[in-house]
Amino acid sequence: MIESILSDILGIEEYRIRGFLKRRVISRVGEIGGLELYRFEKDGSGYEQGTVVVLGEEPRIIRGYPKIRRALLLEKTIKKHFELVQELAVEEKMNGYNVRICMIGDELVALTRGGFPCPYTTHKARKLINADFFRDNPDFVLCAEAVGPENPYVPKDIYGVSSLDFFVFDIMKEDLRIPVRERIELCESYGIKGVRLFGFFKKDEASEEIKRIVMELGREGREGVVIKDPEMLVEPLKYTSSESNCSDLSYGFRFYSEYAVHFFLSRVIREAFQSFEFNESEEERRRRAERIGESILEPMIETIERVSKGERIAERVILRVDSPEVILEFQRHLRRMGIDASFGEIREENGEYLVEMFRYYNSTTDKTRSILEGGTWS
Amino acid sequence: MIESILSDILGIEEYRIRGFLKRRVISRVGEIGGLELYRFEKDGSGYEQGTVVVLGEEPRIIRGYPKIRRALLLEKTIKKHFELVQELAVEEKMNGYNVRICMIGDELVALTRGGFPCPYTTHKARKLINADFFRDNPDFVLCAEAVGPENPYVPKDIYGVSSLDFFVFDIMKEDLRIPVRERIELCESYGIKGVRLFGFFKKDEASEEIKRIVMELGREGREGVVIKDPEMLVEPLKYTSSESNCSDLSYGFRFYSEYAVHFFLSRVIREAFQSFEFNESEEERRRRAERIGESILEPMIETIERVSKGERIAERVILRVDSPEVILEFQRHLRRMGIDASFGEIREENGEYLVEMFRYYNSTTDKTRSILEGGTWS
Repeated sequence: MIESILSDILGIEEYRIRGFLKRRVISRVGEIGGLELYRFEKDGSGYEQGTVVVLGEEPRIIRGYPKIRRALLLEKTIKKHFELVQELAVEEKMNGYNVRICMIGDELVALTRGGFPCPYTTHKARKLINADFFRDNPDFVLCAEAVGPENPYVPKDIYGVSSLDFFVFDIMKEDLRIPVRERIELCESYGIKGVRLFGFFKKDEASEEIKRIVMELGREGREGVVIKDPEMLVEPLKYTSSESNCSDLSYGFRFYSEYAVHFFLSRVIREAFQSFEFNESEEERRRRAERIGESILEPMIETIERVSKGERIAERVILRVDSPEVILEFQRHLRRMGIDASFGEIREENGEYLVEMFRYYNSTTDKTRSILEGGTWS
Repeated sequence: MIESILSDILGIEEYRIRGFLKRRVISRVGEIGGLELYRFEKDGSGYEQGTVVVLGEEPRIIRGYPKIRRALLLEKTIKKHFELVQELAVEEKMNGYNVRICMIGDELVALTRGGFPCPYTTHKARKLINADFFRDNPDFVLCAEAVGPENPYVPKDIYGVSSLDFFVFDIMKEDLRIPVRERIELCESYGIKGVRLFGFFKKDEASEEIKRIVMELGREGREGVVIKDPEMLVEPLKYTSSESNCSDLSYGFRFYSEYAVHFFLSRVIREAFQSFEFNESEEERRRRAERIGESILEPMIETIERVSKGERIAERVILRVDSPEVILEFQRHLRRMGIDASFGEIREENGEYLVEMFRYYNSTTDKTRSILEGGTWS
């Protein structure tokens, strides 16, 4: 039954849908406004991971946000990747989490990258995003970075945002993203914030400009840029600052047993290629090496010291909402994601509700404790 | 047929042997002096990986050298691991490759850790090891580190060895290793070199002594120590210097696409626990971080620079033998191991034969070249 419905919507043979459901390539998410949702958990079906299928009388496919490929060298990669493009748009890549905001039935919903509706993000989006946008463009999907300190996934206090805010970097219609200038105009006309545009550059001049921009962003602790074909016909590229690579390392090594392997190799390789392309002096290289070494060593030592004092390794964040019900819903959502977190007491402040959340890193705590107690490394 | 022979020798049911052969847990190695050899390629059978089975009228099992567990903290780990031992022997852990030297039939053979007879190592062992030892102790296996610059696997020029030499650290008899004092005496009586013994220490004083020894070894660029129950009833522990951890990182990152993932995480975690246990000052930590950062960044940049100049990434080593035939045999051995290497012309020098060997790291070369040509990082 469900196989044939999904088969019709997706244009995939029923026997393949059956296989996808069995291997959890596709799985049921739940209901929103009476409509059933399914999502693609994994790649490999032709649909991006995170793609959401809405059943009902007017079924709909909300495509997953595609993975953006990374340049390790600016000049060569831009030249090769944007072979047929003359002009490039350069925008800020912000450090938060990727969400897709859209209408499902009559409800405005914020989907995480994986394709789950997140209650906290949805609550914030309903407050901050002008709903007229969707009244006029019901099929559009706003792709935005959710940034700020009151952020359950990637809390950062570098963007002048007091709680959590959304910065749109793409508008999707089915599997297309609309041209950059069109997107900026459309967002502006509804008062929807977008990521910072550094400008449109001639392709030949872009890599010098980007180098300058990224070094400046790095000094401010910001992440990097996304380089786009203004027409959005060629896939974008991303490129990040050394400070952002090191800040990722530092984060990864605080929770070394859960994150370090994934965080490590790609980040230090980026650093080596950047140093090579920027033609650094011996002194600049030495400083970069020191930055890398400290980003690795310091957070691990701090973690060891914390555990040696009996602490449990956790990330602390404050969430702020208009109704305590949102927090309860969000707790259920985290449990479903398999995230181990605990919450403090909910307190009211000027009509808003605040709660302290601790996200636990049990593998790091357990591994560290076992070594502190004299365990060996296998 | 072979199943039932192996079953009898190993004391494992025939149907399990059949499964092991099928899944290549056990595989045929070849023949030595008319005797068939099998080896354990993988763990999980109860026999160590690298265990060799010699068929024939007097079949024999040469056990694989057991993995030595690593201490990340000296004091706590020694206390816990050697709970029932009062005195500890501390010996140097040398940086070369682990070999087992033994008699198979009438031939003296050097087996690599994986259980292959290595023609180059065997040739060197026949020159350097007093064969009387095996005449008197035919069942014994000398476990030695093969070190020196003319070393096809781990070339190091830090031990005052001119070509390649063997330093015994254990003598195995069946699955037992003989007591430390007995081993040292036995080796001395045959003029066989052993690893350096730093002394026998009271357990309570050992960790302070080892810290001092390891820091001294580090300054000399040496690897670290193995801590043993002198009776060899409790398994040994190993512990390494920061300089050795960083030198491994540096090696791993020269060939970052083949080695870095394996080399990386465990080494930097060792560094963090060592810094914590040594209670380092801010300045000492900063220097350690710098050492780590440089060990990661510098070799990668050098590799990128080499590839950008058209070089193919390789490790160069000189091998020295008494007969050109050994080199040909060794080449066949490397091909069988799946190691991509090329050899220069064999030249004679004072009755010895020298050859230059290049071991290629194709994954690192290819990955680097692809990025230099503007490829993206997936």
